[in-house]
Amino acid sequence: MKCIVYKGKEHMALEDHPMPTIQDPADVLLRVTMSAICGSDLHAYNEDRAGQGQVMGHEFIGIVEEVGPRVERLKPGDRVVLPFGLGCGACFYCKRGWHPQCPHYQRFGLGSLPGGQAQYVRVPMADANAVHLPPELPDETAVLLSDILCTGYFCAEQGSIRPGDYVAVVGCGPVGMMAQMAAHLFGPALVIAIDTVPYRLDTARYLWGAVPLNAAEPSLRERVLALTEGRGADVVLEAVGTEGRGLDTAFEVVRPAGTISMVGVPTVDTYTYPLRKAYTLDLTYKVGRCPARRYIEQLIPLLQTGRIHPERIITHVLPLDQAPEGYRIFASREPGVMKVLLKP
Amino acid sequence: MKCIVYKGKEHMALEDHPMPTIQDPADVLLRVTMSAICGSDLHAYNEDRAGQGQVMGHEFIGIVEEVGPRVERLKPGDRVVLPFGLGCGACFYCKRGWHPQCPHYQRFGLGSLPGGQAQYVRVPMADANAVHLPPELPDETAVLLSDILCTGYFCAEQGSIRPGDYVAVVGCGPVGMMAQMAAHLFGPALVIAIDTVPYRLDTARYLWGAVPLNAAEPSLRERVLALTEGRGADVVLEAVGTEGRGLDTAFEVVRPAGTISMVGVPTVDTYTYPLRKAYTLDLTYKVGRCPARRYIEQLIPLLQTGRIHPERIITHVLPLDQAPEGYRIFASREPGVMKVLLKP
Amino acid sequence: MKCIVYKGKEHMALEDHPMPTIQDPADVLLRVTMSAICGSDLHAYNEDRAGQGQVMGHEFIGIVEEVGPRVERLKPGDRVVLPFGLGCGACFYCKRGWHPQCPHYQRFGLGSLPGGQAQYVRVPMADANAVHLPPELPDETAVLLSDILCTGYFCAEQGSIRPGDYVAVVGCGPVGMMAQMAAHLFGPALVIAIDTVPYRLDTARYLWGAVPLNAAEPSLRERVLALTEGRGADVVLEAVGTEGRGLDTAFEVVRPAGTISMVGVPTVDTYTYPLRKAYTLDLTYKVGRCPARRYIEQLIPLLQTGRIHPERIITHVLPLDQAPEGYRIFASREPGVMKVLLKP
Amino acid sequence: MKCIVYKGKEHMALEDHPMPTIQDPADVLLRVTMSAICGSDLHAYNEDRAGQGQVMGHEFIGIVEEVGPRVERLKPGDRVVLPFGLGCGACFYCKRGWHPQCPHYQRFGLGSLPGGQAQYVRVPMADANAVHLPPELPDETAVLLSDILCTGYFCAEQGSIRPGDYVAVVGCGPVGMMAQMAAHLFGPALVIAIDTVPYRLDTARYLWGAVPLNAAEPSLRERVLALTEGRGADVVLEAVGTEGRGLDTAFEVVRPAGTISMVGVPTVDTYTYPLRKAYTLDLTYKVGRCPARRYIEQLIPLLQTGRIHPERIITHVLPLDQAPEGYRIFASREPGVMKVLLKP
Repeated sequence: MKCIVYKGKEHMALEDHPMPTIQDPADVLLRVTMSAICGSDLHAYNEDRAGQGQVMGHEFIGIVEEVGPRVERLKPGDRVVLPFGLGCGACFYCKRGWHPQCPHYQRFGLGSLPGGQAQYVRVPMADANAVHLPPELPDETAVLLSDILCTGYFCAEQGSIRPGDYVAVVGCGPVGMMAQMAAHLFGPALVIAIDTVPYRLDTARYLWGAVPLNAAEPSLRERVLALTEGRGADVVLEAVGTEGRGLDTAFEVVRPAGTISMVGVPTVDTYTYPLRKAYTLDLTYKVGRCPARRYIEQLIPLLQTGRIHPERIITHVLPLDQAPEGYRIFASREPGVMKVLLKP
Repeated sequence: MKCIVYKGKEHMALEDHPMPTIQDPADVLLRVTMSAICGSDLHAYNEDRAGQGQVMGHEFIGIVEEVGPRVERLKPGDRVVLPFGLGCGACFYCKRGWHPQCPHYQRFGLGSLPGGQAQYVRVPMADANAVHLPPELPDETAVLLSDILCTGYFCAEQGSIRPGDYVAVVGCGPVGMMAQMAAHLFGPALVIAIDTVPYRLDTARYLWGAVPLNAAEPSLRERVLALTEGRGADVVLEAVGTEGRGLDTAFEVVRPAGTISMVGVPTVDTYTYPLRKAYTLDLTYKVGRCPARRYIEQLIPLLQTGRIHPERIITHVLPLDQAPEGYRIFASREPGVMKVLLKP
Repeated sequence: MKCIVYKGKEHMALEDHPMPTIQDPADVLLRVTMSAICGSDLHAYNEDRAGQGQVMGHEFIGIVEEVGPRVERLKPGDRVVLPFGLGCGACFYCKRGWHPQCPHYQRFGLGSLPGGQAQYVRVPMADANAVHLPPELPDETAVLLSDILCTGYFCAEQGSIRPGDYVAVVGCGPVGMMAQMAAHLFGPALVIAIDTVPYRLDTARYLWGAVPLNAAEPSLRERVLALTEGRGADVVLEAVGTEGRGLDTAFEVVRPAGTISMVGVPTVDTYTYPLRKAYTLDLTYKVGRCPARRYIEQLIPLLQTGRIHPERIITHVLPLDQAPEGYRIFASREPGVMKVLLKP
Repeated sequence: MKCIVYKGKEHMALEDHPMPTIQDPADVLLRVTMSAICGSDLHAYNEDRAGQGQVMGHEFIGIVEEVGPRVERLKPGDRVVLPFGLGCGACFYCKRGWHPQCPHYQRFGLGSLPGGQAQYVRVPMADANAVHLPPELPDETAVLLSDILCTGYFCAEQGSIRPGDYVAVVGCGPVGMMAQMAAHLFGPALVIAIDTVPYRLDTARYLWGAVPLNAAEPSLRERVLALTEGRGADVVLEAVGTEGRGLDTAFEVVRPAGTISMVGVPTVDTYTYPLRKAYTLDLTYKVGRCPARRYIEQLIPLLQTGRIHPERIITHVLPLDQAPEGYRIFASREPGVMKVLLKP
């Protein structure tokens, strides 16, 4: 089967691998019908962070091809989405909705499992993780449930936004876009989008009606104060990660007694936390990897009724064969590039 | 000054009364710039429930004309809105945001205080209750803050709607309209509007994108099940009150382990509660008079940024002189009639 | 095997039935090590509400004797507790912790399943429902997890008690005792116990430090006001059910903007709800059957560390053979009788 | 009047100052009846952090002696407690209970206001801040409401402890003691007390039944895991502050998806936050100065009913004259020293 394999910094290759097979009675084999490139794939691509030979891809949906003997809730022909990381579904953490803390947690693509930028993928612990998709949900929309739609929602939910709040979103890449869209589910008076790339800021304004602020221009804090009755953002959603500059911005624009909710993936071990300021201002800071499994079923009705349209961020749908080009395009951050899907 | 006075069943009169004056050091005198007729005024009008000679009106805004000697936060010329009921601001209940339970609670119009369908009104405990209005907020919008916008929001908030929920709103009068609009601040997948008046159902669809269901047609429950994955509404907002038929409908359409939040004003002392059903289905039921003071400042930013447009329900703005005609129009429930404002 | 069978009003019999067997691949067969008589068993006994020939008992623990072929989490020899009602663990309601609303919900004893006042019991959907017990937890304590400890906790939790609140508990039978004990986990300033039976009131005072109030004496409301700074109970926990007199009491003693949480099982279809009062006072009312499965694992650590001692309410531990006498004793409501266990 | 004045590192002096007077119409003049030395006073004493000539003391209660002309809720003779910092009571932050973020926030002793280790103190914005004390509450208990009891409660509340949780408290000084006691109001299965001073650990065990762990001994994390089913503390309350070593410990012992709530006052500007770990573990971190005003009325009933006994931590009550000796004793951290009160 065809799949996309990490070969080193800025080098992805289309390869032909043997078909995956059922290895455990709880496995299913999935024929992938749509896959996507995630910003975290891009970090791997740009910074040599994936393992040599890793089959990439943790955002995908597909059709069940074969089921292991202990699988009960799935049968061949079922159309399902998987969260990007899998939990056992029965432990202390899974029961509380914190699958990334499950002792059996495994991730596709960038983790221990071969990924879904491939024609087929083996899915362990399938009963506990696969979610059936309603037939009317297009592949392009459904594939976003595996990671970035849930991650954006998680970021917004953790921010404890109340109706009438001013929300700032730092980072207008695909996850930041999802966080903005999700923020609107909590009734904010205003969403402020912060980035340094004009195309992304324009997109934030166009898609979700955000007020865009270019962080590369001076006096960011003053501009935020001017939009928030002089007090700063009630809630800041951070969708940048990396070395922490997005987090610097979050501390710059958050209001006293406000909350920073961060889902951006850090690439550094530590961050110089403004402790005295945080103490004096009574700040709450939440950061973490999204337990996507917790949210998929909650979000599907919002897609079905058209209440949210995450697929608006999709700019490219390429055949899987062209994934190396897809990575190049996504890495370019050029105008017109936001989210790249791969169709096997 | 001119004011509208209750004279008996279906009889309101324009009268000339002496100007109100400051009676307590914490009073202010307000020159009313906009007033409205509320559904509860209509109950009084239709059912002879107000006191003879009562100056009507508990929805109004205005300009401070004169302030008592202990007033600190207000000065002549300030433009303010008042909640329809006033609390002391300092007691156990007021501190928890439950002003209607304040021992000093007083209501305009239908309560002990002469109302705001008048050129001037005396406002007791003014510092604790008056809220400054931003200059850019039109009178037509701002006047809705005194009652129905807050009441609709309270109804939705008490329902504990979560993103993705199915919400049914029973009653599509002005308060039901506000409840529908407010429900959207909590991210529902769908809002279902239930009423028996076609014009009101059409308006619910047109203004807020609700799915309208006519309760006068058969199989209401089945139609709700068809819209809610077969389970019923996660949350039901009741905006009918009176003898409890709206509440009957709420119990008919709510899902197991769901919540009914009711702000409709009952005109009966008791209701035959389906206790065994509620026990078996694990239902939550909240009912009450809205503590409008709690919400005014929270909702103003949503009006300023255009996130909500409650003024869309206004169908008539009449001069105060024509209030008797306004009551007649509102009471007609004819197509084209939703909310009637009165301009002194 | 020996089991206790309902034979008609006030008539329980010890019978010898064939051993239950595995009928479904997800079943386990349990050897019961401790069982209990519940207040709802007593209703059946007193009021002829169980089915002729029903094997009684929904509170029990035991040792797994045999497991069906699809059971994964349990093996012979495991010591487990079961909730009194079973859910599938995977549906919309089970995932949200509302197992009594599961379409596959089944109850032992009073429901469709033969009960646990027996030497052996068949347990369907065992993986989703059985919870392992720590070895140090005595049988007498553990058996209370199957119903009344969870039900009392559920009642308290639904009441949304905040530290410093005044809590009234109506009904001092076994469930009311558990509700009082559980209420203390939420930091109330005071727990007021209301009943008409002096022994039960004395027990409430002795075991949990409650202030006992005899509802048979005059001026109950005034006595509650005197204990609550004149405002009534912030939260009322109702553990009576039946025809609704306990609920009458709850409405009598709750404070404005307070909450009534009820787990008492009603024996009537409807209740005359004081609607106007509830509206005027902004009351919240929750009622329902406890989803015991949701709480068992949460409560076990509290038992292990000795933070709670529900076993204090046990007054009788009889051999299973003497269950008919156990029912008679429990039904007597005599001084010295609170909770009766049955040891097979 | 006599008062205690900061004269430089480890030097407090009893001085005779002019009586304070009413300076603003909203002031009251208070005759102090009990005062206390706080751990933050000690930081100032040890590290030369207060201003030269500052009258010390932010924990005190007293009797109103004189009131300004705009004061409405207080009169001479009233016995009241003040929070250690004052807010206006009417701004965005005060209304949400975040008084430390009020633009008019002022603190006694270590802030801009002369403190309460004195015979008299001027209290600005008195109506909004002073809380009446019930007569039966002893001075020794009531004085703890001004800061450390509220601060300990705030710390616990921010931790979002659920019944059955394992809670670790880092730091067993007076605030850590209050945090432990307050934690019990949220129903934890266990409170683990962490410190390096044996006397403090013994006191934690003796007063609140905590399991004491000496952080100076090896393998702290392993010992916490052994007490928490192998997962770490669900919630960690940090009551150390200073350079952040307590926070290091908090990150060491918190469980995945857990919460750290910190009220320890930092003496450094920044902290090396373990960002990658926090991301991978989905951690929540809250830090801040306690809005004591928010909690005083909520906690008083708990004191009145004897549900909590914060006064158990008091080890010394000295005449105000002996305050310099009191500071020396408190600074010694010797066995037998926990909380020092000063009686004018």
